[in-house]
Amino acid sequence: MSCIFCKIANKEIPSFTVYEDDIVYAFLDVNPDSDGHTLIVPKKHFTDLDDIDLETLNHINKVSKKIKKLLEEKLSCIGVSLLQNNGSAQEVKHYHLHLKPYYEGIKTMELVKYPENISEPKEVFEKIKNEN
Amino acid sequence: MSCIFCKIANKEIPSFTVYEDDIVYAFLDVNPDSDGHTLIVPKKHFTDLDDIDLETLNHINKVSKKIKKLLEEKLSCIGVSLLQNNGSAQEVKHYHLHLKPYYEGIKTMELVKYPENISEPKEVFEKIKNEN
Repeated sequence: MSCIFCKIANKEIPSFTVYEDDIVYAFLDVNPDSDGHTLIVPKKHFTDLDDIDLETLNHINKVSKKIKKLLEEKLSCIGVSLLQNNGSAQEVKHYHLHLKPYYEGIKTMELVKYPENISEPKEVFEKIKNEN
Repeated sequence: MSCIFCKIANKEIPSFTVYEDDIVYAFLDVNPDSDGHTLIVPKKHFTDLDDIDLETLNHINKVSKKIKKLLEEKLSCIGVSLLQNNGSAQEVKHYHLHLKPYYEGIKTMELVKYPENISEPKEVFEKIKNEN
């Protein structure tokens, strides 16, 4: 298995452990967007949101609540954003949930808006409404 | 109840419905970051990740898998990022999960890096490791 997050979860590659149990491993991102930027990964390899089973995903939810509180208590952040990428924006193809703390007096986390024009919501709705 | 997302979920304010069941309501963001930018909200009012119960959160997970696939099938996006803000970055204080599709040939979603210096992960770890 050459997946870097599998290796980190198995302790073949060292990392700063934030939380661990039988199902998940949480560690500090080595290239953090902010202090305390943490990744929660399942110990079993799942590629993304399509691949991961609900039981594991639900456990990650539970753990995310706990780690959010830990980060707020220990780091004096004023909030925590959770992010989970799928597709080409997902650099490592092992499901991972980012917990990104942010701090007083600095720009809060926000996603870069696309430079191109955005369609009217009604036009988008026409494309997706058929199946509802 | 003056919460705008409660009003949207109750159909007091019109929106473009992406998905609905007894527990959640999903609709197109009126100020989208990309085409198909969808919000999933619980019909019951919860403020954030601390407040929402696990049963509802798990149901949102399940629905997020379904809506991700719908967006990919209908909108030819190359990926979907999930984002959930807490604290001051959360504009509406009713728990909501963003599903943000992104598209070929344009910048993929990424979070703005903080302008200030980032601490060494080891320093951060020293602050949070006590409870583990």
